[in-house]
Parts: sequence; C-alpha cells; structure tokens
Amino acid sequence: MAEVKNKQVIFKEYVEGSPKESDMNFTDAASIKLKLPDDEDEASKAVLVKNLYLSCDPVMRILMRKPGDETSAYFTPYAPGSPLSGYGVAKVLDSRNSNFKEGDLVWGTTKWEEYSVITALESLHKIQHTDVPLSYYTGILGMPGMTAYAGFNEVCSPKKGEYVFISAASGAVGQLVGQFAKLLGCYVVGSAGSKEKVDLLKSKLNFDEAFNYKEEHDLNATLKRYFPEGIDIYFENVGGKFLDAVLLNMRVHGRIAVCGMISQYNLDQPEGVTNLMCLVYKRIHMQGFTVRDYFHLYPKYLDYILPCIREGRVVYLEDIAQGLENGPAALVGLFSGRNVGKQVVSVSQF
Amino acid sequence: MAEVKNKQVIFKEYVEGSPKESDMNFTDAASIKLKLPDDEDEASKAVLVKNLYLSCDPVMRILMRKPGDETSAYFTPYAPGSPLSGYGVAKVLDSRNSNFKEGDLVWGTTKWEEYSVITALESLHKIQHTDVPLSYYTGILGMPGMTAYAGFNEVCSPKKGEYVFISAASGAVGQLVGQFAKLLGCYVVGSAGSKEKVDLLKSKLNFDEAFNYKEEHDLNATLKRYFPEGIDIYFENVGGKFLDAVLLNMRVHGRIAVCGMISQYNLDQPEGVTNLMCLVYKRIHMQGFTVRDYFHLYPKYLDYILPCIREGRVVYLEDIAQGLENGPAALVGLFSGRNVGKQVVSVSQF
Repeated sequence: MAEVKNKQVIFKEYVEGSPKESDMNFTDAASIKLKLPDDEDEASKAVLVKNLYLSCDPVMRILMRKPGDETSAYFTPYAPGSPLSGYGVAKVLDSRNSNFKEGDLVWGTTKWEEYSVITALESLHKIQHTDVPLSYYTGILGMPGMTAYAGFNEVCSPKKGEYVFISAASGAVGQLVGQFAKLLGCYVVGSAGSKEKVDLLKSKLNFDEAFNYKEEHDLNATLKRYFPEGIDIYFENVGGKFLDAVLLNMRVHGRIAVCGMISQYNLDQPEGVTNLMCLVYKRIHMQGFTVRDYFHLYPKYLDYILPCIREGRVVYLEDIAQGLENGPAALVGLFSGRNVGKQVVSVSQF
Repeated sequence: MAEVKNKQVIFKEYVEGSPKESDMNFTDAASIKLKLPDDEDEASKAVLVKNLYLSCDPVMRILMRKPGDETSAYFTPYAPGSPLSGYGVAKVLDSRNSNFKEGDLVWGTTKWEEYSVITALESLHKIQHTDVPLSYYTGILGMPGMTAYAGFNEVCSPKKGEYVFISAASGAVGQLVGQFAKLLGCYVVGSAGSKEKVDLLKSKLNFDEAFNYKEEHDLNATLKRYFPEGIDIYFENVGGKFLDAVLLNMRVHGRIAVCGMISQYNLDQPEGVTNLMCLVYKRIHMQGFTVRDYFHLYPKYLDYILPCIREGRVVYLEDIAQGLENGPAALVGLFSGRNVGKQVVSVSQF
C-alpha cells in the first residue's frame, strides 16, 4: 500500500523558561501507510487514527522538562526528535483491537501529527455522543471536564452558598468549575488575565464577579474586596504569590483543590509560598489531585454534563487554532494567556 | 480575709524575633484573697485555683505577637502588663460553679501565677485519674496528647506498615505520634536537634530511626536515606525548609498533618516553601488542624491512653523546671530546643 505524507510537530529539545515556537518543529518529512501491518507484534492490538482535534494543556509544559527532576518520576518527559503527545479527538482508520473499529470516533492520548498509531489504548475512549461539537472531547467532555468535575465535587466537598474563588478562571478547567459552583448555588469569583476574559466570565460564564489580576497590585486587598467574608473553596490553577494571597483570605475549614500551578511551570525555581501557617490557624484542607485518579467517574460525569450542554445550562468557550502548522503557536500562547477559553488545534475535518 | 502574695510571670511587651527571658517579668507584687467574693457578678461562676504545673507550648510564641497580623483573628494575643496564660494543672480552692468543688484537681487554661481565678471554664477538665503523674495533664493526658491522637488518627488516616516521619520528634506531641504510629505497626523515623534527643527517640521512645537535623546539610538526601521508599505520613511541627525537603520525599497519596511550624514562629517573614507542586504530582493531602476541633474525643482518648501508660506501652518524657521563677527561661528554651521532652513548670507541690 502506498504511503502518504504525515505532517508532524516534533519536540526539538528540553525547554528552560518559557516555551517558544522554535522549541518545536512543524514538518512533513514523515510518511505513513494508512493500514496497520498484519504481522507485527507491537501493532497487534493497535489502532490507526486520523487526528481531528488536538488539545493544548498546561501539563505539556511539564513534559518538556529535562528528565531527572522531581517531576519525571510522575510524568514521562517528551523525547526530543519525536512528535509531541497529548489529548486529542480522532477517527479510527484501522484497528487490531476488538474494542475499536474503522470509523469509530475516539478521544484520548494521541500524537501531534495527522495520522497516529496508538498502542497505549487504556486512555482511549469511544465517543458515543456526536450531537455536540467533537472538539468538546478535548475540553468539557474530556480531560479538563473530568478535572473540573472531580476536583470540585470530589476534592472540594462544596456546599450551597459557599464562597468559591477560581484562578485562571476562563481556562479549560476554570470556566467549568465556576459554572458547576454556580449550578450548586455558590458565590463564585474568578480571576483572569485580560478585560476580555473578565467580561466573558461575567457575561457568558455566569460568574458573580471576576477581575483582571494584571491590574491588581495587592492581591490580598483585592480578595478582601471580593470576599469580605473570606473564601470557602479555592480552585488552584496558578500557584506562587496567588496562593499566598488566597491563604490569607481563606475561611476556617476552607478547602483548596490544587489542580495545577501554571504560573510556576516556566520558572527554574518556583516562588516560595510563605503563608502556610494559615493552614493551621484556619484548619484548611489542601489537596493535590490529578484527573487520572478519577476517570472511573467519567460515565457519571457524562450523565451530568450532557443534559447541561444540550439545555444550555453550561456553556464552553473554545479557542480553536486552524491547522497543525499553527499548533506550536497555540501551545506557546497557553503560557502567556493568549488563548480565550480552551485552546484546541483543529488538524483535520471530520 | 487576709490576702496572700501571688507570684506572677507578667508579659511585658509584644515580641519580635526570638523571645527572651526579659520579655517577661517574674514578680511578687500582686496579692489575692484565697476565697472567691460572695457578691461579685463576674465571679459568680468562677473557680479559684492553686496552680501546680504550667505547660510551655509553642503556640505561646504566637500569642506574644503584636495584634493586627493574620494570626490575631484566631488567637487572642497576650495583653502586655498581664500574666501569661496557658495550659496548666491546678487544685480548686474555692468554687462558685457546681461542676467543680474545693479539692478537685483540674487541667485547662489558667495563668502563670500561683493562684488564679478562672472564669472561662469551658476548657477546664476535672482530673479523674490520679494514679499517673499529675504533670501528665499538661502533656500526654492534656492538650499535646489530644493533639497527637487526633492529628495522627483523625487527620493522617494511618495504616499498618506505612512510612511515618515526624519532625520535632522528641517534643511534647512528636514523641507521642511516633509511639502511636509504632503501636499501629508503622515504620517511624523522627528528627530532633541533639544527639541526646536522637538517642532517646531510639532507646526510650521506640522509634525505628532518628537523626539530628543540625548535623544534616542536605535534608532531601537525608530523607532519601531513611525513606528509600518515600514517606506516607508526615507529621509537621517545623515548617519551612523542612517541609520543602519532605515534599520531595512524599509518596503518592501521602498525607501531611500540619500541627505547627515552630521553625517559623520567630521569623518576621516565613521561609518560602517552593515544592508545593509535589502536592499535585503525588496527590498529597495536606491538612492543618488544631486540637480545639477534637476535644470531644478526649474521653475516647483517655480510654486508649491510660492503659498504655499503666502497662508501659507508651512512655512520656518530661522536662520539669522547678519554680515559677524559672518559667520564663523554660518557655524561652522551647524555641531553641533546650528542653528534652515536654517542657513543664512546677509551680507548687500538691
């Protein structure tokens, strides 16, 4: 069978500081047969897919780090010279696995290229509902959605009427946590990095209040203004000085779900957090979590979220870059906050 | 009725940096009638006690801070010119409260003086068991004992065979957490600040291992040596750089009970903790707690601990300073680690 070109985004070298487009290389040098080989062992349970949407996620910055630091025991870093990997939505072109057949739509871990052979099938979910945008399976119906759902409901133990603060609130996860909190009857404030995002939080995403952290020079005072009674629940996406200011404003028996700390990922040495004694004074429960521990709840989550989407009770903002060649810029933009909503890369039409 | 002299330790002025003996004033200028007045409203439910033992506790440093910072909302600072207050063991000389009568032995919050009129009776417990040293009610049978019991069992969710690390391990709380963990079948390592303390941890307190942190220049490496498999449970008494090194050595789903951060109390600006992303990588549960939330468990704790004491399964190291006049030195010594075991001040013989 003839081979076709397979455009790819190659990871060039381990990154220090802010990732740049030049840390990746868009190329069409590779080619691939659009049929799985019949005889190879390794491919005996593989699926061959055409990638439709790729997801830009903050964790990808962590995977760009040189192996050897603390993180590499938990996240296998990218291999220089190979394509990036990440979550995506794809169509099955060929399958040696009985769970998937040609024509199936799937979401899960794939590679930054037009066509991928996926052998690690544990993370691959068959898409059953196609009356919603397929790109949603990189966001509200995928990993970020599950992260928001599990992080808020399982880690934060929220109650109606509680005061909830969300940083990076217009991002893939934050925008959902805020809407879930509002549906439960909480008071919800979010922070984001531009006026446009702040306006969207209030006008589209149903947040009670929102502020642009770049215009606030004393976050402690800002939080006191928005939360005169203090914060019951903080959904932490940012870390560093943000966390320090929040600790000062938490209420007794408050809960902090640590989802990520995007402000720290590009730093060689993270900022020190100095107000941890607040954990004792206020008996605060702070818990790190990763969505990987909660995927067993995915069917339950779909039952919850699909009606919300269909009935318009939850909306989802996406920022879709067109074409794999624009993937590196989209991914880099995530760390300067250029995206408005979930950053997706559209690779191919269905 | 004639008045008697009432020796006192007066708090002189708010403290910055390390507390000094000269921050307190031992005086016999005051006098007191050893009978409650019949007619005064305020004393209508009070008890008059003779203080026998006073407790030196790390939290007392926090109460010496100038009001206005974050802590003063949770701990009412000492008033300059008044005696220190704190936990103690006392004998009731007179009572206007039906729960206490002359001759009763009690423990709870009292003042640093020979005789006290106690009007806040919520914290006062009648002592029912006197076959154990009375001073134990400032330690193993009092607030530190409850702190260790609740912090370990309620906050850490310990399981047999887990790896437990305790800082300030020979102190009032740490020595108990270690022994409770050993009784449960955990592997227990403690850190302390002298060879004598390290020897006691291993020889008397049943710890599997112990080390002198002052002789370790790379705490991360030290912890890797003692915990090649990592730490499941950290009982945090110290904070700062200690916590940072522990975070690097925690296991997945580890638990950190934050009891206190004594290394930070004398600092104007706490040390920054930089490794909090470990909370996410390892899905760590970090919880601050104060014993005040757990005193309802005190009867259950007594049922557990009294047989342990009587049968010698748990021992308790005390460092008893003789005489109220030596109280300031004993209290100050707590912050330089001069005490070996629970620091108590013996005020008067029973």
